[in-house]
Amino acid sequence: MRVPDIRVIAIPGIPEIKENDDLGDLIFGSATGAGLHVQAKDIFVVAQKIVSKAEGRLIRLSDCTPSPTAADWAQVYGKDPRRVEIVLGQARRMVRMEKGLLIAQTHHGFICANAGVDSSNVPPGIVSLLPEDPDRSAERIRTGLEIRSGVPVAVIISDTFGRPWREGITNIAIGVSGLHPLLDYRGQRDSYGQMLEATVIAIADELAGAGELVMGKTSRLPVALIRGFDFQPGSGSSKDLIRPEERDLFKN
Amino acid sequence: MRVPDIRVIAIPGIPEIKENDDLGDLIFGSATGAGLHVQAKDIFVVAQKIVSKAEGRLIRLSDCTPSPTAADWAQVYGKDPRRVEIVLGQARRMVRMEKGLLIAQTHHGFICANAGVDSSNVPPGIVSLLPEDPDRSAERIRTGLEIRSGVPVAVIISDTFGRPWREGITNIAIGVSGLHPLLDYRGQRDSYGQMLEATVIAIADELAGAGELVMGKTSRLPVALIRGFDFQPGSGSSKDLIRPEERDLFKN
Repeated sequence: MRVPDIRVIAIPGIPEIKENDDLGDLIFGSATGAGLHVQAKDIFVVAQKIVSKAEGRLIRLSDCTPSPTAADWAQVYGKDPRRVEIVLGQARRMVRMEKGLLIAQTHHGFICANAGVDSSNVPPGIVSLLPEDPDRSAERIRTGLEIRSGVPVAVIISDTFGRPWREGITNIAIGVSGLHPLLDYRGQRDSYGQMLEATVIAIADELAGAGELVMGKTSRLPVALIRGFDFQPGSGSSKDLIRPEERDLFKN
Repeated sequence: MRVPDIRVIAIPGIPEIKENDDLGDLIFGSATGAGLHVQAKDIFVVAQKIVSKAEGRLIRLSDCTPSPTAADWAQVYGKDPRRVEIVLGQARRMVRMEKGLLIAQTHHGFICANAGVDSSNVPPGIVSLLPEDPDRSAERIRTGLEIRSGVPVAVIISDTFGRPWREGITNIAIGVSGLHPLLDYRGQRDSYGQMLEATVIAIADELAGAGELVMGKTSRLPVALIRGFDFQPGSGSSKDLIRPEERDLFKN
């Protein structure tokens, strides 16, 4: 058996992304330019922020008129009411609005702070929204990379989310193309021959987290290449990672 | 600037672990035997299961007498009442007992399924408990590795936990020694010169997840070596990753 040995490499040289940029083309060019010639089963972890920029998912705060609800809540916690309004607009439902924090379920079904609305690494006065359909974004980038490289790859769009009971945020997968995001061990046997019953690993989230380790937040490295991870290619969707309501023990 | 480039490697040749085994010694021997000579700032991700075995944290189901509470609940959901009793005994409080699932806060403060009680990769009729003090377990292994290698390293004890709203489980850090588990970007500036306000990354959890990608559940590879990740050495504790009650928006 080959001993698993993975590399996680930041791709240097990705330029500042503007609306309508072709991310597949730019990532391929930067990887190749850095001597990282794309190989079959390479996995690209792409920060949500550059996807949102390429897709024009930016809003100017000054273009936004806060509703009374947003204005009231913002005033209590000393927040920008326009930003609160944008968060409310991105939410399918609000999960928590307390202690100055907005935890929302987005239209995609993700539960996260501020419905994914974020002002880091965008120009002052601007906030970014999550991509409209991050699986499609991932697919578009993957297709671009595959056309240029001639080999099958996978793409994960990642964003940093909080967790209810743990400090710190971690990168998770909000968009997936080219791999099954869950690795299901059910029906396999452990080293004692016992059936594994409840072991389904969210590998796409672990891959996103591994990518974050080389991306950083201040170093202009929004794409990581993960090489050597043996995954099952497939059409996959980030929706497979969202727990359906009937299995949710923590809905409220 | 050096482009971040990390390797995540499974350490082959770790033997079946028995009570009182010296994990630092065994990991050092297996790594060296595989040509992975320990280097400064190597990070070792060690699966909880082998730590529990080395520390004798195994219980025979037949040694356990279920309480009426455990027996009643077990009967409703068709579970083994002895196993339920053991879970209740490992819990500081029960967070959810529904749909056949037991979500508990452990004595350490972790919130997870079955209070960390697990029957995979242990002999039939036996369950494993979490280490009593996983930070101490990590420290002991780290000291063993440092004495033998002569270089500073870090150790993370990992376990797979579920998440409230996401499908699949991921590896997280339940014990940490030699690194700060949180990377705090607050006060640093993003690429537009704006202050980053709320960005604290749980790198120990991301490292644990990266380790899981090479460990697998059925392949007898319970230790991963992560090389090339530039971290801040420090005494660190997995307690830094547990959200204090006053900041918990999802206590009930």
